Amino acid sequence: MSKKLNIGLFGFGCVGEGLYEVLNQSSLLNAEIKSIVVKNKNKKRSLDENQFSYDSSVILEDPEINTVVELIDDANAAYHIVKSALLKGKNVVSANKKLIAEHLDELIELAQINNVSFLYEASVCASIPIIRNLEEYYNNDSLSGIQGICNGTTNYILTQTNYGKDYDTALKEAQELGYAESDPTLDVDGFDSKYKLQILIKHAFGVTTLPEDIFNYGVRHVSLENVNYALEKNYHIKLISHAVKLDNKVFGFVAPHFIKADHPGYSVENEFNAVIVEALFTDRQSFVGKGAGSHPTASAVLSDISALQYEYKYEYKKTKSAKNLVFSNDFIIKIYLGSKSEDKLKSFNFLQKDEVFQSRGYSYITGWISFSEILSLDFNKENDLFFAVLPEPFRLSEELEYSQEEELFAI
Amino acid sequence: MSKKLNIGLFGFGCVGEGLYEVLNQSSLLNAEIKSIVVKNKNKKRSLDENQFSYDSSVILEDPEINTVVELIDDANAAYHIVKSALLKGKNVVSANKKLIAEHLDELIELAQINNVSFLYEASVCASIPIIRNLEEYYNNDSLSGIQGICNGTTNYILTQTNYGKDYDTALKEAQELGYAESDPTLDVDGFDSKYKLQILIKHAFGVTTLPEDIFNYGVRHVSLENVNYALEKNYHIKLISHAVKLDNKVFGFVAPHFIKADHPGYSVENEFNAVIVEALFTDRQSFVGKGAGSHPTASAVLSDISALQYEYKYEYKKTKSAKNLVFSNDFIIKIYLGSKSEDKLKSFNFLQKDEVFQSRGYSYITGWISFSEILSLDFNKENDLFFAVLPEPFRLSEELEYSQEEELFAI
Repeated sequence: MSKKLNIGLFGFGCVGEGLYEVLNQSSLLNAEIKSIVVKNKNKKRSLDENQFSYDSSVILEDPEINTVVELIDDANAAYHIVKSALLKGKNVVSANKKLIAEHLDELIELAQINNVSFLYEASVCASIPIIRNLEEYYNNDSLSGIQGICNGTTNYILTQTNYGKDYDTALKEAQELGYAESDPTLDVDGFDSKYKLQILIKHAFGVTTLPEDIFNYGVRHVSLENVNYALEKNYHIKLISHAVKLDNKVFGFVAPHFIKADHPGYSVENEFNAVIVEALFTDRQSFVGKGAGSHPTASAVLSDISALQYEYKYEYKKTKSAKNLVFSNDFIIKIYLGSKSEDKLKSFNFLQKDEVFQSRGYSYITGWISFSEILSLDFNKENDLFFAVLPEPFRLSEELEYSQEEELFAI
Repeated sequence: MSKKLNIGLFGFGCVGEGLYEVLNQSSLLNAEIKSIVVKNKNKKRSLDENQFSYDSSVILEDPEINTVVELIDDANAAYHIVKSALLKGKNVVSANKKLIAEHLDELIELAQINNVSFLYEASVCASIPIIRNLEEYYNNDSLSGIQGICNGTTNYILTQTNYGKDYDTALKEAQELGYAESDPTLDVDGFDSKYKLQILIKHAFGVTTLPEDIFNYGVRHVSLENVNYALEKNYHIKLISHAVKLDNKVFGFVAPHFIKADHPGYSVENEFNAVIVEALFTDRQSFVGKGAGSHPTASAVLSDISALQYEYKYEYKKTKSAKNLVFSNDFIIKIYLGSKSEDKLKSFNFLQKDEVFQSRGYSYITGWISFSEILSLDFNKENDLFFAVLPEPFRLSEELEYSQEEELFAI
């Protein structure tokens, strides 16, 4: 017989509300929401006011509540709630990627010490069961790479710019549709994608990273020239959370990528998300679904709750086997780098140039470059620069011989 | 510490060979192939002859072998091997969909009685981890439907006919590429897709079926007229293993479907497979990958072996909760039905017709029809008939009112 879960729910936005409906109005699961704690007293909600409390201790100090579901926006408040719940021996289900990206190792340890589960499938691509698959299905050392289109807002914007809209129009639409916040920075500058990448790296390769370890560059500076270049070459532009294991190193970052029609993310459009797993033998495996929104997120939370009934825990098997693996930024990639100003381009040291295009209005270079050159700039703040990764595998720095060809180019 | 697996391998085709390389030449898993049994003494193989035995008792009677990996073609021989291995308390990993479709309940029981694992992820869409996900992630009663493009041969053929090739040319190409057997019946008539559907139904809904319960119609009779109709309407034709739960009934069959661009299988081309899961809240979730071939299949076998180290077993949770569910063919669907002969079309009783097209060369009807009308014929044997499911949900028979409109049509 499965374990009865008495749930304390933090947050009653659209996800919390959907979850409440399913859990308390059906017999799907042997689980019940006992208390709901929200922050704002004055917000109109679908349930009667006496169903809500405003003090977290109502949940945290209730010994009958064995499971906390945390669905609030504020990562700092969530940190205190989750930490406190784990310390009190309660299971925790969370959808808060920022919280997890910033504090994962500490929270894992707390869960282990207190012998409870800390599950967070909803934090990465909502309904796509990628964490569970990385934990359970790809649980040997056979993974070599992972790529995620993990942010629906930017994927919506890039789909629309691909169809000829300019960035500002596409962003405005995304906001009107509820995909983007009024301050879209976390999405459009790639922070949200980065937090998810950190979680993916942990479960794919067993390596813990901090947000400051990982470079993130978003879609803010995609211009018509870049879109047209992509169209000419039959590329789609996608913001990809990309990590690769080479030898005993894990490389990873968030940046726009030009991808070809044979890439499984090519036709993943608008608010959809995808995660592509590269493993020994499998070629590429892809998982596609809605990555945000109340229902997809609630469904992932529901699956975590369902797993708790069988006392499921992430085992972090790869963390145990990853002792010699380190996160590194010492690799080279092939990129497209464009600017209105030739001078801007000149300041980058390419290891090998493949194309150099100059015109009065816009110039670009494609070629191999050390990732350290990229790291030297905060690209999100560079209005007149855009780079995208070209469809070539990352390489170790020593793998590329300096090419004589480069001398041919005069830029 | 994980359990050491001593493996007895039946079959040394390309999958077995790939598996051997990984297991015995790396330290990925705590597992070793101790004995290999093959049938044909005279076949040239990559390993020395003394590595092989030709008598199944070499594996089955060896008490040190705790795990049997069965990778042979012959479903009858596989049945005896698997049954005998389970009876002797050995775990079994199999990729043989026909075996499983025909004997699943018996084999599940044997595994349970003998307290061993019987895993078969590779049997459905090879590297796509769909069984594990249905078991572990969608392990409550929230699933409402499942659709699989489970057969790479037919998907290759349909991709090519969509590009303008005729069926015979496309089939010949598939054979040259190694996707189709010289006798392609199992693939092109939808048997292979049906076996996989049965396994999907078991893990999605908990209901056991036999091959004879389920209708299968393949791609043999796709003609230029059908392809052109699809192109006009912007449909792609896909052979879909389709099951739906409505109330306390599960409906399922294999047939060509016309799908629209918003269907996740629309751009799944050539030898690729996809499984689309419809669950409460998630909208559609899709899994895409290579569904056949040595490497994708070996990777699924490898994941099963890896799971055995943690004594993983399918729990068939949904079978326990599915007591009131029955498999049924009592439903209605909307189809396109085409023929060179108007008379052939006239013999079908449509509940409601949407389109009737007649010409000297080819005629078709689209509309709602009871599935029992379909069952009355072996469509694989009807050279001058083709039907495909149109993109409308299945309905219960009582849901459609008889339409007055039908009287308008004179066919």
